[in-house]
Amino acid sequence: MDSTTADPSRTLDAVLDTVLDPAVAERLKRDAAGLVAAVVQQHDTREVLMVGWMDDEALRRTLTTGRVTYWSRSRQEYWRKGDTSGHVQWVKSVALDCDGDALLVSVDQVGAACHTGTHTCFDGRDLAAVTGP
Amino acid sequence: MDSTTADPSRTLDAVLDTVLDPAVAERLKRDAAGLVAAVVQQHDTREVLMVGWMDDEALRRTLTTGRVTYWSRSRQEYWRKGDTSGHVQWVKSVALDCDGDALLVSVDQVGAACHTGTHTCFDGRDLAAVTGP
Repeated sequence: MDSTTADPSRTLDAVLDTVLDPAVAERLKRDAAGLVAAVVQQHDTREVLMVGWMDDEALRRTLTTGRVTYWSRSRQEYWRKGDTSGHVQWVKSVALDCDGDALLVSVDQVGAACHTGTHTCFDGRDLAAVTGP
Repeated sequence: MDSTTADPSRTLDAVLDTVLDPAVAERLKRDAAGLVAAVVQQHDTREVLMVGWMDDEALRRTLTTGRVTYWSRSRQEYWRKGDTSGHVQWVKSVALDCDGDALLVSVDQVGAACHTGTHTCFDGRDLAAVTGP
């Protein structure tokens, strides 16, 4: 055992820096694929920009780096929003809902949120619906 | 064959009234459980109230009745918001996102959206997060 592992408290700190806070992890209600939904909202206009998916590690990165990271269900890999497009999402706040299966991530969005170029992933995509009073 | 089934076009209409519009159904990218996420937003304040889950039938009911209906993953049954609590969600509009796995449902919420009594399911449930610039 070398000197860097001789102090148990230092070792524990190093491990905890690489995993999601256990107090948060135990509140997550993950789907069969180990994911929760992440709703992303522009902090000032309150537009809903997009919905992505996070596993524990994507959430850990989102909570600790100031940038939003997702798990891509189609590509089966992590992606940090903006690394390819430049359309970074800066984290303003993150909340977990009452039953632990959805996150609300408030961000400052740089450029378009949608990979198609629309401002949000919902713009121009209304379905025909009967409306209430 | 009785008179009500003698007219093929009438029969087709009757069947189509009981299924989700095929043009919408083919755009849905469902998870392993056959569900898409439904983000519910108050139409005027733009608060994100909650996230629920919909299969094709829950979406059909939501699009055709003016009230929001979900599929409960925990109870494995349909639930129309407000039937028990009185906290009805009146549909204002529904949009499907670019890749078909999330809905944005704009509503007029009666009372609290959350079954715990908080106005939204995210209120008071912030996680500690490093924020961007």
